[in-house]
Amino acid sequence: MEKKRTTIVLFSGDYDKAMAAYIIANGAAAYDHEVTIFHTFWGINALRKQEPVQVKKGFLEKMFGKMMPRGAEQLGLSKMQMAGMGPKMIKHVMKKHNALSLTQLIELAQEQDIKLVSCTMTMDLLGLQKEELLDGVEYAGVAAYLADAEDGTVNLFI
Amino acid sequence: MEKKRTTIVLFSGDYDKAMAAYIIANGAAAYDHEVTIFHTFWGINALRKQEPVQVKKGFLEKMFGKMMPRGAEQLGLSKMQMAGMGPKMIKHVMKKHNALSLTQLIELAQEQDIKLVSCTMTMDLLGLQKEELLDGVEYAGVAAYLADAEDGTVNLFI
Amino acid sequence: MEKKRTTIVLFSGDYDKAMAAYIIANGAAAYDHEVTIFHTFWGINALRKQEPVQVKKGFLEKMFGKMMPRGAEQLGLSKMQMAGMGPKMIKHVMKKHNALSLTQLIELAQEQDIKLVSCTMTMDLLGLQKEELLDGVEYAGVAAYLADAEDGTVNLFI
Repeated sequence: MEKKRTTIVLFSGDYDKAMAAYIIANGAAAYDHEVTIFHTFWGINALRKQEPVQVKKGFLEKMFGKMMPRGAEQLGLSKMQMAGMGPKMIKHVMKKHNALSLTQLIELAQEQDIKLVSCTMTMDLLGLQKEELLDGVEYAGVAAYLADAEDGTVNLFI
Repeated sequence: MEKKRTTIVLFSGDYDKAMAAYIIANGAAAYDHEVTIFHTFWGINALRKQEPVQVKKGFLEKMFGKMMPRGAEQLGLSKMQMAGMGPKMIKHVMKKHNALSLTQLIELAQEQDIKLVSCTMTMDLLGLQKEELLDGVEYAGVAAYLADAEDGTVNLFI
Repeated sequence: MEKKRTTIVLFSGDYDKAMAAYIIANGAAAYDHEVTIFHTFWGINALRKQEPVQVKKGFLEKMFGKMMPRGAEQLGLSKMQMAGMGPKMIKHVMKKHNALSLTQLIELAQEQDIKLVSCTMTMDLLGLQKEELLDGVEYAGVAAYLADAEDGTVNLFI
């Protein structure tokens, strides 16, 4: 039997939306789907290393780098952000219920061989460099995403 | 011939996005699709009963309950919220054009046997209880969603 | 071999999300998919002509017309809007990298025979008229969208 495939475009840079993406992705992988998460635009911020990385950049690229959240745990919420109170509250109840943090969900995804792809066009535009992203991330464009999505049983844009 | 299936993850708690979800869902059901709407995160607020329900909750769960909109007609807009003016304007023109309100779209969905599911993980996190949601709603996790989506012809994340 | 089909519901009126929609759509068309973009709610604003068009409207319809962005290049960003600074910065780096603007992506879509559809129900609600939208746009409702999506290999909601 052919393997089923799930693809997710993660466009959003919100903690809650990224969580939803990774929960669905990890669920699908547990169900034996081949899974791709194609991170584009703000979604790439979830893949940034938390510590600052020394890379040479132009002025605007430096600005983007500074203004955008550095890594999964820096992302805000799509709702009830409340000047940072919302994420704190959500993370508090997540801990209480032993729910995995976004960081842990990304680690689990890597353990489950989910293909984590970062959109090269966005990286060019925002001046992000491979050294700034997590190890194991792949780099590709929309053509590679479409090749996967064509075979996808479940294709979502988040 | 096998029945076609449409599944929608309703993540958003915005009135306009929930409307779009329910319009597509009701359309698909009219076309004889089996339809599932899986409400997760803020999308569950569309299913809350409008009147307050007495349930025992911890402090943070009470806070979430109070801060989140109680039921379909309390949701805001994703754009042009304008301190509540936007929803009023939209609802005014909807009435003028005899468009169904979100409440009516949800009722129609229930009449058309659309499966309305509330994500149990989110309910745990936000401290929502079954008594607070509309009658007839089903309760399940991401595994049940994926089982439906695997057979889906149209799978959307809204 | 049957032709593959991609359908995108463009609900969002954000510049970055519309860009993502049109980049995926143009990519799919280049891969020989039949592609439909169904513009609904705020997504229709991407199709408005930039110059004001004289049409007879009621008061509320005039208000909506004035408050909503007129055409692709007037759209804001979903993140980092920063009172208009964000779109300027993004457009600056796009130019620097020879990336196509949203206007050019829409033109390319029309050249590639991508079906650009505007949702008639939304147009009724917001009081938008055909004269205000780009030439070549088609007009249809959710039923027509579903007919296309039923045959879709890749169906996305953006």
